[in-house]
Amino acid sequence: MKITILTLFPEMYEGFLTTSIISRAQKKGVVDIETINIRDYTLNKHRSVDDTPYGGGQGMVMACQPVVDALQAVKTAGSRSFLMAPFGTVLNQKVVRQLAKEEHLILICGHYEGLDQRIENFVDGALSIGDYILTGGELASMVITDAVTRTLEGAIVEASQLDESFENDLLEYPQYTKPDNFRGYTVPEVLLSGHHKNIERFRLKESLRRTRRFRPDLLQDRPLSEKEAQLLQEIIEEEK
Amino acid sequence: MKITILTLFPEMYEGFLTTSIISRAQKKGVVDIETINIRDYTLNKHRSVDDTPYGGGQGMVMACQPVVDALQAVKTAGSRSFLMAPFGTVLNQKVVRQLAKEEHLILICGHYEGLDQRIENFVDGALSIGDYILTGGELASMVITDAVTRTLEGAIVEASQLDESFENDLLEYPQYTKPDNFRGYTVPEVLLSGHHKNIERFRLKESLRRTRRFRPDLLQDRPLSEKEAQLLQEIIEEEK
Repeated sequence: MKITILTLFPEMYEGFLTTSIISRAQKKGVVDIETINIRDYTLNKHRSVDDTPYGGGQGMVMACQPVVDALQAVKTAGSRSFLMAPFGTVLNQKVVRQLAKEEHLILICGHYEGLDQRIENFVDGALSIGDYILTGGELASMVITDAVTRTLEGAIVEASQLDESFENDLLEYPQYTKPDNFRGYTVPEVLLSGHHKNIERFRLKESLRRTRRFRPDLLQDRPLSEKEAQLLQEIIEEEK
Repeated sequence: MKITILTLFPEMYEGFLTTSIISRAQKKGVVDIETINIRDYTLNKHRSVDDTPYGGGQGMVMACQPVVDALQAVKTAGSRSFLMAPFGTVLNQKVVRQLAKEEHLILICGHYEGLDQRIENFVDGALSIGDYILTGGELASMVITDAVTRTLEGAIVEASQLDESFENDLLEYPQYTKPDNFRGYTVPEVLLSGHHKNIERFRLKESLRRTRRFRPDLLQDRPLSEKEAQLLQEIIEEEK
């Protein structure tokens, strides 16, 4: 998979691209991530990329020409391009899985007050990472790149993905590591028992408990297996 | 305001901290952002910070000791500490505004399969930036730092914040800059008219139109002013 990021701040990506799983995934050829400086495409003699908004108002607006020309230059037959924008489709794990099927993603980062509206005519869609405002699209593009890359085959050990939060529409069960007593806080006995069936039951139950406690909205539209329904009933009884 | 980030990958923050608005906000003394390497606090002779999970399973779990000791070392009387975690409070602009009132935020980034559950006993809360899985908490902590910093007095021109998406629970109106005709795509006439009242009306109407189109959920629980209700009615008529 290829991910091309159009930005005014390619230097912002250095730390992100050279650390940990993303760096390893690139070395292994699982993903090829490139950053392109939108400013390199401006035809303006001052190399400016923004201008004042029509109709007045504070701040600057990124102009069509450099963004659209940068996009045209990197587009490929199999590419899909997305603006990082508050009005975009809100990212969740299902959207991540869909994006991961693309051959070539192009992520376009706005900055300043935003992008000229007409740029929307040249892209395939828009994505948002949540209902908050960022100073630019750069962090959003990193979040999308990170979330997508880690689902690609070979990026991380497959089995370690299955128990993660949201993968089965539940929050992940609590994890514990050595020592079994940390300053008076102990590890649940069952995890030290070696009894695999009980451990599995405990983990599913605690996963349900956490989801019920912290994110009841995730349980609302989710069909429950017979076992899950029974465990949830136990939790409700216990917490009465 | 001070923001302390506990992480295993402080080098990941270099680009973020030296770019644009965040860098300027630091130089102006609006915010003081520091990254602390959790590994510096390990008492383990191999300097390891993680271990295998109790009860078995893939991946490694970050151990209590280095994280808790790093946290204790940076805590101050006015600090509030948050884990970056999928089960946390989901960030939105209202949560951002609340966080911005704190004197000292401590953001703790997990990595690998997660943090030992018992670390929760030592923190004030947990935050999530959305319903997707990341390789670690680092990007989440940058998103929170960015979103909070830009709302602080003096970080950016105050007036330019008011029209942003989500600030009034609506998506932002479309922006346009020169030229008025870009490859056949033109700017709405009203924005070239200089008639401020009409421009204001157009912007509010288009803000409502976009919200209705892309994020109808934002309109659901939001009370409408008389003017907004009237504009929304016009939109519904136009789009019939």
